[in-house]
Amino acid sequence: MSTTSSHWDRFQKFFVRYPQIGFSIDISRMAFEEGLFDSQAASIEKAYADMKALEGGAIANPDEGRMVGHYWLRNSDLAPTAELKAEIDATLEATLQFAADVHAGKILAANGKKFTRALIVGIGGSALGPQLVAQAITPATPPMAIDFFDNTDPDGMDRIAAQIGAEIATTLTLVISKSGGTKETRNGMLEAQAAYQAQGVDFTKHVVAVTGVGSELDKYAIAQGWLARFPMWDWVGGRTSVMSAVGTIAAALQGVDVRQFLAGAAAMDAETRNRPTRENAAMLLALMWYSAGKGKGAKDMVVLPYKDRLVLFSKYLQQLLMESLGKEHDLDGKVVNQGIAVYGNKGSTDQHAYVQQLRDGVNNFFAVFIQVSKSRDTAGFEVEPGYTSGDYLQGFLRGTRTALAEKGRESITLTISEVNAFSLGMLVGLFERAVGFYATLINVNAYHQPGVEAGKKAATDFLKQMGQVLAALPAAGAGATADEIAGPLGIDAEDAWHMASHLAANGKAKLAEGGSPAEDRFLAV
Amino acid sequence: MSTTSSHWDRFQKFFVRYPQIGFSIDISRMAFEEGLFDSQAASIEKAYADMKALEGGAIANPDEGRMVGHYWLRNSDLAPTAELKAEIDATLEATLQFAADVHAGKILAANGKKFTRALIVGIGGSALGPQLVAQAITPATPPMAIDFFDNTDPDGMDRIAAQIGAEIATTLTLVISKSGGTKETRNGMLEAQAAYQAQGVDFTKHVVAVTGVGSELDKYAIAQGWLARFPMWDWVGGRTSVMSAVGTIAAALQGVDVRQFLAGAAAMDAETRNRPTRENAAMLLALMWYSAGKGKGAKDMVVLPYKDRLVLFSKYLQQLLMESLGKEHDLDGKVVNQGIAVYGNKGSTDQHAYVQQLRDGVNNFFAVFIQVSKSRDTAGFEVEPGYTSGDYLQGFLRGTRTALAEKGRESITLTISEVNAFSLGMLVGLFERAVGFYATLINVNAYHQPGVEAGKKAATDFLKQMGQVLAALPAAGAGATADEIAGPLGIDAEDAWHMASHLAANGKAKLAEGGSPAEDRFLAV
Repeated sequence: MSTTSSHWDRFQKFFVRYPQIGFSIDISRMAFEEGLFDSQAASIEKAYADMKALEGGAIANPDEGRMVGHYWLRNSDLAPTAELKAEIDATLEATLQFAADVHAGKILAANGKKFTRALIVGIGGSALGPQLVAQAITPATPPMAIDFFDNTDPDGMDRIAAQIGAEIATTLTLVISKSGGTKETRNGMLEAQAAYQAQGVDFTKHVVAVTGVGSELDKYAIAQGWLARFPMWDWVGGRTSVMSAVGTIAAALQGVDVRQFLAGAAAMDAETRNRPTRENAAMLLALMWYSAGKGKGAKDMVVLPYKDRLVLFSKYLQQLLMESLGKEHDLDGKVVNQGIAVYGNKGSTDQHAYVQQLRDGVNNFFAVFIQVSKSRDTAGFEVEPGYTSGDYLQGFLRGTRTALAEKGRESITLTISEVNAFSLGMLVGLFERAVGFYATLINVNAYHQPGVEAGKKAATDFLKQMGQVLAALPAAGAGATADEIAGPLGIDAEDAWHMASHLAANGKAKLAEGGSPAEDRFLAV
Repeated sequence: MSTTSSHWDRFQKFFVRYPQIGFSIDISRMAFEEGLFDSQAASIEKAYADMKALEGGAIANPDEGRMVGHYWLRNSDLAPTAELKAEIDATLEATLQFAADVHAGKILAANGKKFTRALIVGIGGSALGPQLVAQAITPATPPMAIDFFDNTDPDGMDRIAAQIGAEIATTLTLVISKSGGTKETRNGMLEAQAAYQAQGVDFTKHVVAVTGVGSELDKYAIAQGWLARFPMWDWVGGRTSVMSAVGTIAAALQGVDVRQFLAGAAAMDAETRNRPTRENAAMLLALMWYSAGKGKGAKDMVVLPYKDRLVLFSKYLQQLLMESLGKEHDLDGKVVNQGIAVYGNKGSTDQHAYVQQLRDGVNNFFAVFIQVSKSRDTAGFEVEPGYTSGDYLQGFLRGTRTALAEKGRESITLTISEVNAFSLGMLVGLFERAVGFYATLINVNAYHQPGVEAGKKAATDFLKQMGQVLAALPAAGAGATADEIAGPLGIDAEDAWHMASHLAANGKAKLAEGGSPAEDRFLAV
């Protein structure tokens, strides 16, 4: 019986591999038509041209008037000026040297002992990149443990400080903020400083800044005499900063081969820069996103790496795609409400969570399987004669891909040889370029994030008004209602109620609960 | 100037609080019309009736012919028979006693020392519940550290084993599988056993089974003489098992007040069992899901707890909703492809990741904010005069809610007083009941997962055929192509290529790569 199937033919046609770097992409289980390549030809050419201009130093982020240079970080020869190249090279060298000096005991804690832990204070790209690296490519028992203050949750910081305990005396803190003005990071820095002080440790001898030169944080670090400062540049976005000082210091401190990480990204850049479209993994990804979501993000992307160490890669892509592509306006100012929703954790674990819905439920997604060829480093322990745990992992991946395809659910499969610094660099580079290409296909600026400002502005207003509410609370009597508080201040009564409630929950006001929020009465403490 | 806004009126109307348990729900920023309550009246009544029958012991999971009894776990008086009540009570008591004995040193490691760590081997509900509890409500420095083998990734298990290191001599392993036949868990158990043996430690003295009486795992545990066994029942689903022995042993070992956890769920059950719809938080949630997604899951649910400790709650809900609601057929056998996609991590961190898309991008979601009133346990460290980190966290939540609402993005806000065992129990109970109600509204069985079987079956076939491929590899010569291997075996050539490639990547075959997959040649080693 002949078993050559139409699947096999389509697989052959839409499977692309780069043997030199141990990578392949299989788009054969996506439902696109061949005509896609022709119908998108003009956009595809524009995407290549846009990317070429971007890599050459054009103002690729027009709204902010900035260059977009994350590709230069792994190949500084691309940098548009000799000065930039020198700065990139010197900064990389300085971060690696710093980490080497910490490991070698040339840079010591205030008590004269070697540093044993690192604490990263940062949020968004300033935390997620280092978290991904820590999860995916550090040694199983890294030279330094690592923790994160990646939020302004005091309880969360208290828990981490409690876990660090007395070891704070040998903990190195990195405060990472491109703008140097991110409030969550400022708060985390002050909380960290207080945690050191509480144990009598000189914070300034234990802390490093990674920030834009001349930023608020930079000035503070200079004034306080911090251990070291490393620069961030306005031409690197937070979500693509993992190969700048933001990521390289933390990675190097944890024993990652940073140069291999950069080399992997550079290699993927080289593979996807000039290849024809049908062999260009980054463009194929962008086209699949376009095809699946009709160019409007009509389908979610579910990321399923079958490898524990890649569990945060799904979250990393969630940030990279959604913050880059989720835009209200296109480049011509038209309202388009673009984006691609991204979620996922890891396989086969997620098969026991939401894969039920993927196969049987709402068909509002396409899956991206990430397959890792090599199961483990050690010899193959067998769980039954002839089979290893890794064989099962592979079987579950292929089985799920088949089960989804049977029900008309689309999937892409990416394969890497193993998870290491080089291959993680490849994957990051691949998706960065795919995002850039796709942004041209849908005509949006992938490099700004204007929508974030509205929330910050509303938060600032809320906090300012909360101060006014606090000051306006009656000191005696039956207390005031939200309406009574809000009226004279000219603020929204619902907001006033939330402000007063928050103050009451945290010991700054007294609350006599009524039958409804309008009847609640608040009093100063 | 009067500041009473229509928002404030709508908030008053659609804000419900349960002061006794420190809980509230605000659905005022959802775009539903009042008519919803009338148009759904019949379905709502049926949902109450279905739930009453379920809690009374009806066969609420018709496809599997099973009762659905997770509500009994926190109030065993509800159990339909005295025997079941006794079994629930005795099992809870036994798990708590076991943990107390471990803490007290009455149950010791094989070396006579106290246990210091726990390793959970389980997947899906058997891991995610314990992970949620470990993240959310254990003390900052719990009495026992905890790790998970929650996949069949050998590399992932190697890393955890390396981190445990010699401390495996005082590590207690819990193997958790309801069916006792889950392959990932079987593999994890064997890998754990090997890790103990590699360090000369008697596994049987360190391992406990949580599984259905008479299951494969149960028999194995008896035959091997394991330390202890605790029962799982067929009337508890994996995704609702965190209050059975699955969750209670791990929680108790980590110092959680398990009775408070159960009490929180029981209290929410009591609040949402008989209340009128407009005051019933679980039914309001279900109605909001219905309204936002038009009863067809047309919108994703984005879960944003503003509290680090609740970061896994988003993932927990992803499993709970998607596995329960993501169904191909309704209860009448009609193809409906139902479900609600769920994702999210935590605020304010996610504001620096994907909230850009939420505000500006595809409007294909509604948000669920989870607000925690109390900022922290200790006195309020100020990050600037009059303001704490917790004030900022609150400001960002309110600011983001406002920024989303300005752009017509819907949101629900749930508020709890603080994160503790009781309040986490409340939240779990709330969503369990909301899922049950919503399942009636859309007429699906929320308590089975038939779609998961197809992937398992395809995986089993793949592994069996991979054995055939291995046996069929030529021992000498130029090797065979995928077509040449697949043909005589009567299997799919694409599958054969993937099988042979996997074998080659793991030292069980040799590969001479050709210009395309069809030209690759494989040879035995």
